[in-house]
Amino acid sequence: AIALYREAKKLKGLQAIGVDCHIGSQMLDVSPLKKAVSVVAEVYRLLKAEGFALTHIDVGGGMGISYQSEKTPGPRDYAHAVLEPLRGLDATLVVELGRSLVAESGILLTRVQYQKENHDHRFLVIDAAMNDLMRPALYDAFHEILPVRQSAQRRNAAAVDVVGPVCESSDVMGRNRPLGHVEPGELLAIMTAGAYGMSMASRYNSRPLPAEVLVSDDAFRVIRAREPVTEIFRGETP
Amino acid sequence: AIALYREAKKLKGLQAIGVDCHIGSQMLDVSPLKKAVSVVAEVYRLLKAEGFALTHIDVGGGMGISYQSEKTPGPRDYAHAVLEPLRGLDATLVVELGRSLVAESGILLTRVQYQKENHDHRFLVIDAAMNDLMRPALYDAFHEILPVRQSAQRRNAAAVDVVGPVCESSDVMGRNRPLGHVEPGELLAIMTAGAYGMSMASRYNSRPLPAEVLVSDDAFRVIRAREPVTEIFRGETP
Repeated sequence: AIALYREAKKLKGLQAIGVDCHIGSQMLDVSPLKKAVSVVAEVYRLLKAEGFALTHIDVGGGMGISYQSEKTPGPRDYAHAVLEPLRGLDATLVVELGRSLVAESGILLTRVQYQKENHDHRFLVIDAAMNDLMRPALYDAFHEILPVRQSAQRRNAAAVDVVGPVCESSDVMGRNRPLGHVEPGELLAIMTAGAYGMSMASRYNSRPLPAEVLVSDDAFRVIRAREPVTEIFRGETP
Repeated sequence: AIALYREAKKLKGLQAIGVDCHIGSQMLDVSPLKKAVSVVAEVYRLLKAEGFALTHIDVGGGMGISYQSEKTPGPRDYAHAVLEPLRGLDATLVVELGRSLVAESGILLTRVQYQKENHDHRFLVIDAAMNDLMRPALYDAFHEILPVRQSAQRRNAAAVDVVGPVCESSDVMGRNRPLGHVEPGELLAIMTAGAYGMSMASRYNSRPLPAEVLVSDDAFRVIRAREPVTEIFRGETP
């Protein structure tokens, strides 16, 4: 890295203004981050000593969140891991915390269309699909699925697979979930959908993009309109 | 199925007009199809004998195509498998051949941005990504990748991984491809992208959807305009 900064100094079009790193996503332990920031801090010190006019250190993102029951570091752990190696440095600190800021503040709301059974296997078919939330199909990711109308007798309900209406076997939102008492017409909340949800959504199976609704206490506002199906053909020339 | 048709007869809002089936995708052997169509034909005969006014049999799709070097059934094999069990039946035949009609007629054209090495591993970074063609990331699917400018010396070139610019490790279009001689700036054709390509595309990583171009002999026409980045925010309300 030092050699690259020296090379950049020779080039008129480039001005080095900071040192950035990003070591990974969904970290459940901050010690690798602390180690990385220590290295970045050392690079920053060396470059400043060589006369580079650096002003910031960007330590990237990566703070893990809890999709299922992962024990995750808190903001305080993250701050300690980042700040300790930077002590005494004259630098603006930049962080790129995306997922950990927004993932848990978003849900995907979906309605149960019907139940079906195949031999002994039970399914809830919902009106959300892999095109709306890609993570289960793409990464085999776990998202908690909760009935909006909760009740005590729902605990220990029979296990079902929650599947979408798209014409392929990868359209599964969750397997073996205790939602056997949920009826067609009920709403389900697919949790932790605020990050990598809408941003990865597609119109696969000619399904227009869903609406986005912002909820604040007891107020709500549609912040992105549900697409009409005609949007799928926008830009096509006959 | 027979019981369901009888049930439908009792319902005013339903009129049974045919028997449809779809047994799967990307079949490389037509014998399961033949077996399925035989069953469907038998159901059709029984229902006609009971007085149902059926007019069509839909045998679905599923004809496999060659992504790599799979031996695939041809249209003639498919036709024989379907037609033999239907011999003598008075029914309109409906088929749902999507992939096998359009997959091989489409390519995803992409430009090489640069080469990079990580220890002994070589990469070509291209300007197409998993958001443009989801199949490799989603299904670990193989798509042939060919340099548009071909030459003899390119055979037996060093193996490289062809990767997109999206910020995650799943953005890999192909591994260990003999494209070591390809230079930045060159165009690559990602083959067999006419099915499940644009239809699964998303704007992940704030990447607008690409243009679609129809080529016929030596003529071409843009049939879907490249999206401006502002399309990503369409429908958002401030």
